[in-house]
Amino acid sequence: MEVSGSFSRLSSPRPVSFSVTNCAKHPNPTKTNLSFRNSGYAPVSASVERSSGSNAAVHLDSKFETILDNVKWDSKGLAVAIAQNIDTGSILMQGFANRDALAKTISSRKATFYSRSRSSLWTKGETSMNFINVHDVFLDCDRDSIIYLGKPDGPTCHTGAETCYYTSVYDILEGSKEDKEERLAKTTLYSLEATISKRKEEIETLPNGKPSWTKKLLLNQELLCSKVREEAGELIQTLLGNEDKDRTASEMADLLYHSMVLLNLKDVSMEEVLEVLRKRFSQSGVEEKNSRKKN
Amino acid sequence: MEVSGSFSRLSSPRPVSFSVTNCAKHPNPTKTNLSFRNSGYAPVSASVERSSGSNAAVHLDSKFETILDNVKWDSKGLAVAIAQNIDTGSILMQGFANRDALAKTISSRKATFYSRSRSSLWTKGETSMNFINVHDVFLDCDRDSIIYLGKPDGPTCHTGAETCYYTSVYDILEGSKEDKEERLAKTTLYSLEATISKRKEEIETLPNGKPSWTKKLLLNQELLCSKVREEAGELIQTLLGNEDKDRTASEMADLLYHSMVLLNLKDVSMEEVLEVLRKRFSQSGVEEKNSRKKN
Repeated sequence: MEVSGSFSRLSSPRPVSFSVTNCAKHPNPTKTNLSFRNSGYAPVSASVERSSGSNAAVHLDSKFETILDNVKWDSKGLAVAIAQNIDTGSILMQGFANRDALAKTISSRKATFYSRSRSSLWTKGETSMNFINVHDVFLDCDRDSIIYLGKPDGPTCHTGAETCYYTSVYDILEGSKEDKEERLAKTTLYSLEATISKRKEEIETLPNGKPSWTKKLLLNQELLCSKVREEAGELIQTLLGNEDKDRTASEMADLLYHSMVLLNLKDVSMEEVLEVLRKRFSQSGVEEKNSRKKN
Repeated sequence: MEVSGSFSRLSSPRPVSFSVTNCAKHPNPTKTNLSFRNSGYAPVSASVERSSGSNAAVHLDSKFETILDNVKWDSKGLAVAIAQNIDTGSILMQGFANRDALAKTISSRKATFYSRSRSSLWTKGETSMNFINVHDVFLDCDRDSIIYLGKPDGPTCHTGAETCYYTSVYDILEGSKEDKEERLAKTTLYSLEATISKRKEEIETLPNGKPSWTKKLLLNQELLCSKVREEAGELIQTLLGNEDKDRTASEMADLLYHSMVLLNLKDVSMEEVLEVLRKRFSQSGVEEKNSRKKN
């Protein structure tokens, strides 16, 4: 296997070059040229020479090699690799990486794993085209667990679900699993977003259902807009009026919630908003844009 | 091992009872009574009888047993268990669970793992008191990977870091690791929050440093407040003026960023804001509070 290329993070855009050369045991690699799409990142290109054997030893530039050497590979040469959505924080999937899988992920910026059942490398998306575009790679304190922090091109699970985690143990124990309603593992912001979406659906499917504040807001744009304006004012007041921290957290929660109802009406997800923020910040964008606008 | 108790999610508060009885092989368990703090959840209590042996077979209520049976334990009886912060989405740590560790996590709602080095169960926090209070448990599509979605009482890593993931491979490759500055694996919202904090620090440590829009806002409350108000108005305008989705995402990004600068001045974290939202929503709180306020 031979990998050569360069990569950079825009927030600290010094390019890093490296090369992975094929070992003598596999003198006739099949050469493939790859070019990678990396939204939010400087273009990355790499030339990968795949050896015919899957266990090709690799020779790497020293820093790159040191990183791979420092991972505490288990007795089978593997470490846990977790793919996480950089914008939402959703855990997309978990697999295992061997040395080559980690090397390929770092160089290609596509989340790559070692398939224990097929005894081979596989890049998530090579069949579905739903690649996970890796923006950062983290090792844990024990150096035996890896996070691929990236942006998925589409649903990660082979079932078509956004992530592979949609079976709640407590739902099963409480019997609500019988409704056949799958529920993705969501953190607070995205649970709230899902609740707002559910209220919107209920307006259509259960017009005489339980009333709720969210439904009222969804049905009354004037009320919603006045609430967003009012909550922004109340948040500001906590600063100007030197109110306590709890009050600030509470008013920010109100502003966030009401703004998210507005996003729902516009069919905009929090993930899209965060993507805007990420792209701006990786280009020092928010600061620059506003600086430009105001000065 | 004998575990009995009940648990419920407030959003669907039907209690679920179960019992785990000790097998005949271990007739003299040591009884411990535990009571658990579960912020955002109905109180959970469980009586756990620990057998003197660590490999006690367990007899469980049928649903509970079915869940444990359905996990695809590996040849060593283990599955990957990932602890994730329910509010921020941060991956706190990754360990392994065996059948007993998963059973104990589900019943006690404290993230519990199987230590491969010590060949015993360990509940994160049993020494440091920094428990991870589990709100939900998810299995992946292959049923060999588990998420403990919970709220940590304090830093998770034994080093005192918030999470165990603070070593970026790209930082090492780019040489910025030489600064000895550790960087936690953060998703977009929390990277932005960290950037704003950094600007605040720079105002004090580098008063003649590079100017930035964030610093300007941090130093001028009047400007900041007018910006928060203005961005709220522009977000509203995208709805009233039927502007396109991209415009909405962009204005929401602006509102979020400026509000977060205000949060920084009040020393309030996004995690605190999200905790407020979670607690309200798990009590149908936002809807009820606002409904009360307005009707």
